[in-house]
Amino acid sequence: MFRFEILARSRKSDARLGRIYTPHGTVETPAFIFCGTKASVKGMTIAQVEEAGTQIILSNTYHLMLQPGGELVKSAGGLHKFTGWNKPMFTDSGGFQVFSLGYGGVGNEIKNAQQTKTNRTLQRITEDGAEFKSYIDGKPILLTPERSIEIQMALGADIIVCFDECAPYHVDKLYTTNAMERSKRWAKRCLDTLQAHGDEKQALLAVIQGGVFKELREESAKFANRHEFDGFAIGGSLGKSKEEMYQTVELTSKMLDKNRYVHLLGIGGIEDIFNGVKYGIDTFDCVAPTRIARHGAAIVKKKYLYGGNQKYLNLHKTSVERDFAPISPDCDCYACQNVTRAYVHHLLKARESLGGNLITIHNMRTMNRLMEDIRTHLEHDNLEAAFVEWCAA
Amino acid sequence: MFRFEILARSRKSDARLGRIYTPHGTVETPAFIFCGTKASVKGMTIAQVEEAGTQIILSNTYHLMLQPGGELVKSAGGLHKFTGWNKPMFTDSGGFQVFSLGYGGVGNEIKNAQQTKTNRTLQRITEDGAEFKSYIDGKPILLTPERSIEIQMALGADIIVCFDECAPYHVDKLYTTNAMERSKRWAKRCLDTLQAHGDEKQALLAVIQGGVFKELREESAKFANRHEFDGFAIGGSLGKSKEEMYQTVELTSKMLDKNRYVHLLGIGGIEDIFNGVKYGIDTFDCVAPTRIARHGAAIVKKKYLYGGNQKYLNLHKTSVERDFAPISPDCDCYACQNVTRAYVHHLLKARESLGGNLITIHNMRTMNRLMEDIRTHLEHDNLEAAFVEWCAA
Repeated sequence: MFRFEILARSRKSDARLGRIYTPHGTVETPAFIFCGTKASVKGMTIAQVEEAGTQIILSNTYHLMLQPGGELVKSAGGLHKFTGWNKPMFTDSGGFQVFSLGYGGVGNEIKNAQQTKTNRTLQRITEDGAEFKSYIDGKPILLTPERSIEIQMALGADIIVCFDECAPYHVDKLYTTNAMERSKRWAKRCLDTLQAHGDEKQALLAVIQGGVFKELREESAKFANRHEFDGFAIGGSLGKSKEEMYQTVELTSKMLDKNRYVHLLGIGGIEDIFNGVKYGIDTFDCVAPTRIARHGAAIVKKKYLYGGNQKYLNLHKTSVERDFAPISPDCDCYACQNVTRAYVHHLLKARESLGGNLITIHNMRTMNRLMEDIRTHLEHDNLEAAFVEWCAA
Repeated sequence: MFRFEILARSRKSDARLGRIYTPHGTVETPAFIFCGTKASVKGMTIAQVEEAGTQIILSNTYHLMLQPGGELVKSAGGLHKFTGWNKPMFTDSGGFQVFSLGYGGVGNEIKNAQQTKTNRTLQRITEDGAEFKSYIDGKPILLTPERSIEIQMALGADIIVCFDECAPYHVDKLYTTNAMERSKRWAKRCLDTLQAHGDEKQALLAVIQGGVFKELREESAKFANRHEFDGFAIGGSLGKSKEEMYQTVELTSKMLDKNRYVHLLGIGGIEDIFNGVKYGIDTFDCVAPTRIARHGAAIVKKKYLYGGNQKYLNLHKTSVERDFAPISPDCDCYACQNVTRAYVHHLLKARESLGGNLITIHNMRTMNRLMEDIRTHLEHDNLEAAFVEWCAA
């Protein structure tokens, strides 16, 4: 059964040390949730994911409903049996992909990245739900709050999320208000569906919407606080700059029931995580650590970067061609213990998938080490020291 | 130091149970050598290669000389340190790729597969060596016997191979004779180079050439027997049918010094291995087990195939979409112990690289189990029983 326990609260900020109990084990928080988008953390076996110290992974309802389908996963015994991952698991509602792929590039906008044009797959939004075209065969699919919960019940993750309308940044306040209000009604339908048909093993998170508008976030938070959600996921557009994003997360988090679990959707930069933790966020998810790995970028503490304004260690660069040091000098991951930057560089250049796999192992372990460090320092209410260790140049 | 010991000889055939001693440990023979073409078994960490029970892997001098170059690998401390593989390692001479890529599709012809047109990169063959164009930057490169050995010394594998002229099947007897005679002169230059500059840790194999012509194989074998090669590698064109291939391997093997180690180049089908073992072959290498894995084909005992004339279990097929059994019911590999055919099918369909990686793990373990079974049965001189177990429908 799901339970969230707060073990300690900081006296300096809203940061807290906690523990999530699920039918598949516990998660020490603050924690990072890795993306296993299509029921696979790309290139990694579950043994490798575990060896990196991972506590919890996420799969996307949107992708899995299209292939192989919730019903097949249910026949397989659920996502845990299907993938071989016996620890806590999280699924999202499908909403983010329906709307971000649908609007064309909104996913990027929400995350503050360059906006790019993609094919719009979203057909129409009604009170019932959202209709979109499958990216596999082009067939129209109607995703409703009820259907999203049914699929997430079939998938069987420990923590599931309400189906919401994820409004982009560029729309006006009226649009954002309507989307937030509809998300409230949809969240209620999600809760009703799970309470009527669920097995009481799955925890349901309400998504807090409202864009960058304080009073809308307030309304969304009030609604969520009032109902029996097991926790909250802060979603929607957080703003178009880091400052705005931090502000939105901080003010939203302050509005939420202080005893319930809070997840921040889609954010995973190291400084962003430190800020999120201070605002009371318990878990984070982001595709970046595993995605950038496949493009040759290794996450290291800032002091180990080759200077300049780099965010990551780019192992594609010729400068590491003869660098026989490990990816990061302080890392205990399998890759750092066994191979060098020069070897990974060679693999990337030779287009050997092992190159990206080794960096994925490293990045996973690094994000897990980051969260371990944050938790250890929170025990002594000394988050600043961890921040200096990870973020000082 | 290299040493080959024969532990038992069959009384029914030329099969033998043996042990290869190298500076990086021993190899129980008959054994299968897996291809780590560009210093990586595609997609696999060294830990995964080891977990599958692998004794020895091979890298290709041709690819590594082009990138990252022998000198860089030497700076890294040799192939073992570079890759993290601390067990026995084998490199070929580069000859096979120079000539097979050079002639266009000869590699396929030699292996009895469909001939396909590829870009011809071979520029010219002289007594000095072979000139070819780099597939990376198009630069002309001269590979000589001396250069091949120097690069293989820099790579530092335990077992290395003489640079030879690998004549295709379709040329006439005169051409094959000349190539075999030149290969003899080149082999002598390889031996001289290693004896003059080597560290006595690397074992050198002579390649037995001569195509399908008995008297040419005889001449090649006589030459190799006469010189201080640590062993032999049967190479060149073995014929264009299975029958011709078996005949060529059998007659060539019979001509070789019975106390030295014999490798068969590029052959790895299960029935072919049983035949090779009977003819006295100690090790085999082939890219197939790992290559076909990436295309969805799992190696299983014949009785576990879905009938028909299939050679492999094709996990791409819709027939396994809801098959929640392991890849093979009798397999102890990581994949079979943790996931199902349906999951691997989903991954292949979703183009998740984990799908090919899981089948690679399975195929490696299966080839190692095959060789373990062959060795166990050779202890009781009962190879037939192992053949029935693996090859009976």
